[in-house]
Amino acid sequence: MYATTFSSTIYSRSYMNHPFDRSKHVFRSEAFEEIIKDTIRFFNGTPVHRLPPPIKFTGTGVYALYYVGESPYYRELYKQNRLEFSHPIYVGKAVSRGWRQARTGNDSGNELYRRLCEHTQSIAQCRNLDLPDFHCRFMILENESRNLIGTVEAALIRYYTPIWNCAVDGFGNHDPGRGRYNQARSDWDVLHPGRTWADHCCGEAHALPLIENKISLFFNKHHDE
Amino acid sequence: MYATTFSSTIYSRSYMNHPFDRSKHVFRSEAFEEIIKDTIRFFNGTPVHRLPPPIKFTGTGVYALYYVGESPYYRELYKQNRLEFSHPIYVGKAVSRGWRQARTGNDSGNELYRRLCEHTQSIAQCRNLDLPDFHCRFMILENESRNLIGTVEAALIRYYTPIWNCAVDGFGNHDPGRGRYNQARSDWDVLHPGRTWADHCCGEAHALPLIENKISLFFNKHHDE
Repeated sequence: MYATTFSSTIYSRSYMNHPFDRSKHVFRSEAFEEIIKDTIRFFNGTPVHRLPPPIKFTGTGVYALYYVGESPYYRELYKQNRLEFSHPIYVGKAVSRGWRQARTGNDSGNELYRRLCEHTQSIAQCRNLDLPDFHCRFMILENESRNLIGTVEAALIRYYTPIWNCAVDGFGNHDPGRGRYNQARSDWDVLHPGRTWADHCCGEAHALPLIENKISLFFNKHHDE
Repeated sequence: MYATTFSSTIYSRSYMNHPFDRSKHVFRSEAFEEIIKDTIRFFNGTPVHRLPPPIKFTGTGVYALYYVGESPYYRELYKQNRLEFSHPIYVGKAVSRGWRQARTGNDSGNELYRRLCEHTQSIAQCRNLDLPDFHCRFMILENESRNLIGTVEAALIRYYTPIWNCAVDGFGNHDPGRGRYNQARSDWDVLHPGRTWADHCCGEAHALPLIENKISLFFNKHHDE
């Protein structure tokens, strides 16, 4: 009874007299669009380092990997990055464990550095890519700006459409762990064999020609943009 | 050879002479903190609706669910929401499929509405909660502002620490699907039994007293904040 009364009171006060109006729910912010542009510009001005970065550092944030080697799959990237690191092959983020659930407020982890080291290992284990051909940029976002991490990552992916985000899946995957090796190898692992845990995955993976075809289509589509 | 020369050229120009300096990678933006406050204020000003919303609408965005019923688990929420919808029980987001991978740029889906309908079903199937005790707010973020979705969701969760985000896991879970019912039921499903697919999960779930204890601890901790 009590609950019903309460609920009805609020109901009548808040919205009984207001029919549904979609426009009242749409948030608009031009200032936000400007900030995202600021972050991308800032990101593009951060120093480039080899992979992994030379020094262990603390922080969470966003990073990009650049490939400047001669793999025939990525000739287009090779050309695009001829004079500057302009087209990443992969963009990712590193956030604190538990940050989204508001369970930790701790800035002191080294998630971003650790993630770059994981990628270093994936590439080093791979038989048709050379680690010295990889470089990285990264942007540390701390305190309240940690809220921007997902947003900036998404904006960079939309802006650059990196091929390992947008056409070849699986680079960022983690070891599925014992008992889950019945999964298929990802497209990335078919294309770039060698990652130790991927070799344990025994599900039926995509065939290499199909993935190579995806890559051609991708570069055809994005070539003139 | 060619690749090595190229790589070395960039290497020397871009960073060979720059030792690692963490501060060059840290992005700071006061304007961003202001925008997040704007979104939260806007969100708190959006109309409240019953669950599900009365009209099917298009868009992606962020939502909050409010519970104003008499379940003994949530007496604290009942008190907090006595005069206004101020403390959500759950905050979530609905994004486009493929948005993060830059594969679609389409605004025309009805992800947010659909997500609210999924939640409606979860609650309706549950044996110790009543759907009329639930209300919702939602904010539609479209075009470039879709980039804000993850950020606003995280900010709302940090600000309100909704109990179904921060202490009782599993409300937002999806049906794991055939072949994966060896999983345990989530804490939410143990606490609020009835969801059809959860009844198929046969892994060893947490015991009810343990979850009830988590709830007490949670409200003790957040009571005076």
